Amino acid sequence: MKSVDLNCDLGESFGSFVVGQDELILDHITSANIACGYHAGDHNVMAKTVKMAKEKGVSIGAHPGFPDLLGFGRRVIQTDPTDIYHFVIYQINALKGFCHIHDVPMNHVKPHGALFNMAAKDPLVAEAIARAVYDTDPSLVLFGLSGSELTKAGTHVGLTVANEVFADRTYQTDGTLTSRTEENALIHNTADAVEQVLTMVKTSTVRAVDGSTIPMQADTICVHGDGPSALEFAKELREALVSEEVTISPIGSRTSST
Amino acid sequence: MKSVDLNCDLGESFGSFVVGQDELILDHITSANIACGYHAGDHNVMAKTVKMAKEKGVSIGAHPGFPDLLGFGRRVIQTDPTDIYHFVIYQINALKGFCHIHDVPMNHVKPHGALFNMAAKDPLVAEAIARAVYDTDPSLVLFGLSGSELTKAGTHVGLTVANEVFADRTYQTDGTLTSRTEENALIHNTADAVEQVLTMVKTSTVRAVDGSTIPMQADTICVHGDGPSALEFAKELREALVSEEVTISPIGSRTSST
Amino acid sequence: MKSVDLNCDLGESFGSFVVGQDELILDHITSANIACGYHAGDHNVMAKTVKMAKEKGVSIGAHPGFPDLLGFGRRVIQTDPTDIYHFVIYQINALKGFCHIHDVPMNHVKPHGALFNMAAKDPLVAEAIARAVYDTDPSLVLFGLSGSELTKAGTHVGLTVANEVFADRTYQTDGTLTSRTEENALIHNTADAVEQVLTMVKTSTVRAVDGSTIPMQADTICVHGDGPSALEFAKELREALVSEEVTISPIGSRTSST
Amino acid sequence: MKSVDLNCDLGESFGSFVVGQDELILDHITSANIACGYHAGDHNVMAKTVKMAKEKGVSIGAHPGFPDLLGFGRRVIQTDPTDIYHFVIYQINALKGFCHIHDVPMNHVKPHGALFNMAAKDPLVAEAIARAVYDTDPSLVLFGLSGSELTKAGTHVGLTVANEVFADRTYQTDGTLTSRTEENALIHNTADAVEQVLTMVKTSTVRAVDGSTIPMQADTICVHGDGPSALEFAKELREALVSEEVTISPIGSRTSST
Repeated sequence: MKSVDLNCDLGESFGSFVVGQDELILDHITSANIACGYHAGDHNVMAKTVKMAKEKGVSIGAHPGFPDLLGFGRRVIQTDPTDIYHFVIYQINALKGFCHIHDVPMNHVKPHGALFNMAAKDPLVAEAIARAVYDTDPSLVLFGLSGSELTKAGTHVGLTVANEVFADRTYQTDGTLTSRTEENALIHNTADAVEQVLTMVKTSTVRAVDGSTIPMQADTICVHGDGPSALEFAKELREALVSEEVTISPIGSRTSST
Repeated sequence: MKSVDLNCDLGESFGSFVVGQDELILDHITSANIACGYHAGDHNVMAKTVKMAKEKGVSIGAHPGFPDLLGFGRRVIQTDPTDIYHFVIYQINALKGFCHIHDVPMNHVKPHGALFNMAAKDPLVAEAIARAVYDTDPSLVLFGLSGSELTKAGTHVGLTVANEVFADRTYQTDGTLTSRTEENALIHNTADAVEQVLTMVKTSTVRAVDGSTIPMQADTICVHGDGPSALEFAKELREALVSEEVTISPIGSRTSST
Repeated sequence: MKSVDLNCDLGESFGSFVVGQDELILDHITSANIACGYHAGDHNVMAKTVKMAKEKGVSIGAHPGFPDLLGFGRRVIQTDPTDIYHFVIYQINALKGFCHIHDVPMNHVKPHGALFNMAAKDPLVAEAIARAVYDTDPSLVLFGLSGSELTKAGTHVGLTVANEVFADRTYQTDGTLTSRTEENALIHNTADAVEQVLTMVKTSTVRAVDGSTIPMQADTICVHGDGPSALEFAKELREALVSEEVTISPIGSRTSST
Repeated sequence: MKSVDLNCDLGESFGSFVVGQDELILDHITSANIACGYHAGDHNVMAKTVKMAKEKGVSIGAHPGFPDLLGFGRRVIQTDPTDIYHFVIYQINALKGFCHIHDVPMNHVKPHGALFNMAAKDPLVAEAIARAVYDTDPSLVLFGLSGSELTKAGTHVGLTVANEVFADRTYQTDGTLTSRTEENALIHNTADAVEQVLTMVKTSTVRAVDGSTIPMQADTICVHGDGPSALEFAKELREALVSEEVTISPIGSRTSST
């Protein structure tokens, strides 16, 4: 019996700046990664998003990023592991506060944007994040790119990790994502994207761009919450998984139930 | 046997912008109110200040303020109690995270600047802050202007409160501080300031500007950490209190020891 | 022969946070008020918006606001006229830089949100803004609420002013807008809104909420750029004005042509 | 007859965060590089600093940096030349506004911190900055590291450039500064630093760390404004230059007078 988690970035609005269609996407996912005010989100948005996720029974996680509202956390800012350790501590504890007042556990942490990408490749960045998560609460689940430095660092410090895969991105033979600058980086066809997910979830492998089959652990799938077709795709993916008898559930609850 | 707490605002540096002489003032106080990144302070400064306060045995509190770095939290920003409730939740939980990684309890909360002043007079602002503190941790001590709406709201929601008094400010007959726009708002003479504190601590009264004696509960004294004479005054005040056999200790420990 | 200007707030996106449908609304207006980075907008958005407005032949103005991205400039921040004078100087000169590189004149200035509202009532705020505009360039047109302290201050310092009226707001007998907290503050019916504008433009009067007819100078009409019906209303209003033989043109060009 | 300019970064205070001793250092320098609100400085500080510089007869320049108050503009932020072009346009025009109201010309532009360092090595960054300066005003002088990509780009677009040298840094044989991570990066001895400056100004050469003599154009010398010994060093350097009959004057005026 296979199972998988569907996660989505949420709570990315800031003051009057509205991003995403959070309330709708919550019906299709099992884990919400909530922005913590550094690259997106603010204290009111965080409170509202935690409350909505709880009401819809969606597992809650912190989504810390670089302190860069202008760049939406998508730009690398030159810094050191101690600074990263501290700003992850700051952000995940701020979110933890909103979970506490809404009497709902914080389940996981997934770094955002440039921080997520750096953590996939740089062992020092990965370790800084993993330690910040562990030092805050060793029972938190750390989400990272499948097979990356981040999931390795998470396991190393003693955390449960969730290997994240992408439905609409292609993979290189070494298991890394094809760079977005390459022509074949994206899977545009919905059926192909769904097929790739099913293969990853059921066989723990994926077909790389050169046609070879490589190992690919798929604990959680990244679902987009923005754009006109996002909701449609999430719904389609979910139905395909269910029809193949894959259980869709958050990492924490799955772990605890097995 | 009388006792009193000496508190000071700390951790107000931001990145390369250095404020105060935190390491030195820590030798003279019993409670540190640490800025939380909204009006001053940042994640690195918070971590460093919590660590220093712990090492010097000084009790740690959160010092939340308006989201206004440019105005240093000293300007009123038009908002509502729900916004205030949320930004206090955010800030005090962020600081709590740094206390947790340094294995030291967060003891109290004192709002900063314009928020402190609003909370002294506006029952709705006071209640929003008191509830944010209580909902985060009912064992936290709430610092507010002595006899103000904030200490009333704190008591009302079930918190231990600390009535704060000022050494260098004069009082009106109704117990409020003389406005800084008035000529006689400040006590410039050090001996007079020390004398005012001794009277408040020992008799729970103060001499108002009209010469009358009014009740004034003094649980904690606000000590300034900046400026050339701040350290000198803190030392002098401390010596005067000790020579009058007043115990100097933080609110939490005093409460627990009696 | 009557003429009127149609103005709209533009360039309010910030980084990845997208606001409005600027490109579409530009087809329906004659003056664009472009945010300057303090309450909304950023340097890239400003450059892009100036370029688009120039291409569509729309007159360009600066839209300075309080330094408050979180509050979108809609919250009063306690400050003084010198601070306001300086932040208006800063913002309008930043926009002027983008007009210069795109070789298009900056035509007007309209304060935003809470600053606009304060300037309508507070003579000191009004004067600070009017002086900042005049000191930057005496040929700039100052947009303010019709008959307000701001248009008075503008005239007093020697600026050309544009009295702004609203299509969808009702007026009190003293010429002020009915507060949004009142039930009858808004005109929900499109035909009524268009009718009110036609009356104001053709007769320089408006029917107040008590049924009386009061003077109301209408040099420019505030058109909303956001929301599903904004474009539709702008189009409808424009057609109604044209069918009544009202010329629709920006303030600067109208002034210069008469 | 040799002449040289002494420049210093000024106006780096932000709100209540005070940096430097601007009023005192202005007595010793000929060019002030004034922060523009992105990495330091704010609209009030800019106004005050422009006014002070004018009163002391010091030449005024803009000092644009990365949008990063937390990092004081000293951290590289991943971005592209168009973004850099736009944020330089924004910042230097904002400062130009304050020069205009104080009726004093803006003379030069010197990029700050990480932007200065990037512009020294990266031709695309250098060109973006040079074009932003030229497009704003072709008569502005562009300050850059002596012999760097920035001064080359400035010359290429048609600007007057000023080659900046450092008194307290050592040079490699290829004319670059010794990295601060190297032991011999700094010249700690004041007499040696003064001697290095005199050699550069009088002979347009410098002794590199390997003992060889290399060409080094010295149009302007970077003087620090912060720290206890900064004023003392500026005074000493100035006296040494004067005693060697070197004229100390800003770039603009020198150029125009010869």
